[in-house]
Amino acid sequence: MRVILDAMGGDEAPRVTVAGAVEAARGGLAVLLVGREAEVRAELARHPGAASLPLELLAAPEVIEMGEHPAQAVRQKREASINVAMRALKEGRGEALYSAGNSGAVMAAALFGLGRLEGVHRPAIGAVLPLLEKRCLLVDIGANADCEPQDLVQFAQMGAAYMAAVYGIARPRVGLISNGEEATKGNALVQATFPLLEQSGLDFAGNIEGKDLTRGAVDVAVCDGFTGNVMLKLGEGLQELMVALLRRTLSEKLHYRLAGAVLRPGLRAALQRLDYTEYGGAPLVGVRGAVFIGHGRSNARAIASGLRAAAAAAQAGVVEKLASGLRATLAGAT
Amino acid sequence: MRVILDAMGGDEAPRVTVAGAVEAARGGLAVLLVGREAEVRAELARHPGAASLPLELLAAPEVIEMGEHPAQAVRQKREASINVAMRALKEGRGEALYSAGNSGAVMAAALFGLGRLEGVHRPAIGAVLPLLEKRCLLVDIGANADCEPQDLVQFAQMGAAYMAAVYGIARPRVGLISNGEEATKGNALVQATFPLLEQSGLDFAGNIEGKDLTRGAVDVAVCDGFTGNVMLKLGEGLQELMVALLRRTLSEKLHYRLAGAVLRPGLRAALQRLDYTEYGGAPLVGVRGAVFIGHGRSNARAIASGLRAAAAAAQAGVVEKLASGLRATLAGAT
Repeated sequence: MRVILDAMGGDEAPRVTVAGAVEAARGGLAVLLVGREAEVRAELARHPGAASLPLELLAAPEVIEMGEHPAQAVRQKREASINVAMRALKEGRGEALYSAGNSGAVMAAALFGLGRLEGVHRPAIGAVLPLLEKRCLLVDIGANADCEPQDLVQFAQMGAAYMAAVYGIARPRVGLISNGEEATKGNALVQATFPLLEQSGLDFAGNIEGKDLTRGAVDVAVCDGFTGNVMLKLGEGLQELMVALLRRTLSEKLHYRLAGAVLRPGLRAALQRLDYTEYGGAPLVGVRGAVFIGHGRSNARAIASGLRAAAAAAQAGVVEKLASGLRATLAGAT
Repeated sequence: MRVILDAMGGDEAPRVTVAGAVEAARGGLAVLLVGREAEVRAELARHPGAASLPLELLAAPEVIEMGEHPAQAVRQKREASINVAMRALKEGRGEALYSAGNSGAVMAAALFGLGRLEGVHRPAIGAVLPLLEKRCLLVDIGANADCEPQDLVQFAQMGAAYMAAVYGIARPRVGLISNGEEATKGNALVQATFPLLEQSGLDFAGNIEGKDLTRGAVDVAVCDGFTGNVMLKLGEGLQELMVALLRRTLSEKLHYRLAGAVLRPGLRAALQRLDYTEYGGAPLVGVRGAVFIGHGRSNARAIASGLRAAAAAAQAGVVEKLASGLRATLAGAT
């Protein structure tokens, strides 16, 4: 098992990506780093003993920056790290690919370099949210800002196949994100999607709200990529806000400060527990390969977790199972 | 100053609404309770000394339930508490109205009973979010699931006028909720709205994400009612999840339990601080009256806070200022 890492992807690449790869490799995972050779080597040199770890380097002279137009950049910069990494995945030089770079570019490079699974109209990005007792895949979190009802149905099918393949959930329960639980709620897109999901053969829980999501009512929560992205970013913002509020509370009084010092390790662990980049990562579903997208602000630990999650999903045969799950669903639906 | 309360609105009405009215009245606020006379009187009788408080009762024999079709129910049940309350507001029997009932019905009853402010196409529901250092009005949080770009521009104008009137912010900064900060991001609606907001004469901050919102980057955050409702419900769910996680952490070890006991009052205050129903409430903007909507699950304290917020907004002359603000904006835009 080897994971291909876009070493140039992310706000602080390649410093953070290399540090993450070293951390994962120290745990025994083989990583193929793709990026500008001199820069990656210089970063590797900063980690004592890196030379003896299962790390290899594949040179890619170009880089796609966060601000670039994804599809254009992917077409023009053929030797960009994400394109070279995608080709390496296609050639079997690794079993999964992880990038914390421009997510639109990862998507475009995957479409361009790997292609879609049979029957897939639009691939989507999922995020495995770590909840209290279980995990939930939220899909789409940003690949498709405007969707048709059929797109949401396919996200549901792919999401269910993903949760079955990676987490062994025999019949994943699927919810449709809406502005109320009643069947009549929703914007035009959701209202048109609802009956299609009822007839899809999936275990459809109906419309769900954010609190159903966080309570673990479903295994897969479906929405358009605009809504999913807004939700994910709001979650990050609220977590930040709560930490700030907690910090302020703990500094209010001397006895709070003392109690806070006692609790610090527990609180830190609890917050990490909620960080989706640390658990399961964000799979790109619907393409012919196991591709995972990390947050641009990922730190070394998040990169290492992402690499491990990618390896675990590939180990579970996620792409083959997703493809066969989709074939079964498509056959059943007709 | 007197606030009209829909005593039958909310999951546990009239028990909780009456308790909230009693709490507000004990603080000196006059409240006109509208609802089924016998039920409201029976609830009032449970509060010792209620008879000497500034509370009055206006009988309304019918009730609109949470599950009913809003517009239909409002038309058919002319004597429903929300309709009777709206008429009382129009007749000047109180300066503001608060209801924790079916929010679609409150909206319909307001349109029907009060009408729109001049130039307003679609009224919207805002929520004043309590952040760390400031407040931010998120609008629309559910009145209009599908919107046109012009609707979002008007939500921005009304939101800015509201924050100017109630919180004295001379030139409120307005952000457009999107799936990324770059000007090119957004779904079709957001992309079409962006240039209109740029030309609106408002202090437009461009596209914002959830974390900009929670960091207090803007005074008004604009989105369609589907997105806003999903955001609000997700916020509730995440807060619930974090409390559960905190509770679990605090029970893990004996010394955590002890430290947790020390911190409990501070933590409770911090969480209350984030509850938007406790601070500022949710104004219905764009109608000819000061109407506030509460959460169906509001407890007595939240009802009391909502009544006080409604009174404060009416005291600030919110409807007149919103009307004149809109007139100025509309004049400036042409």
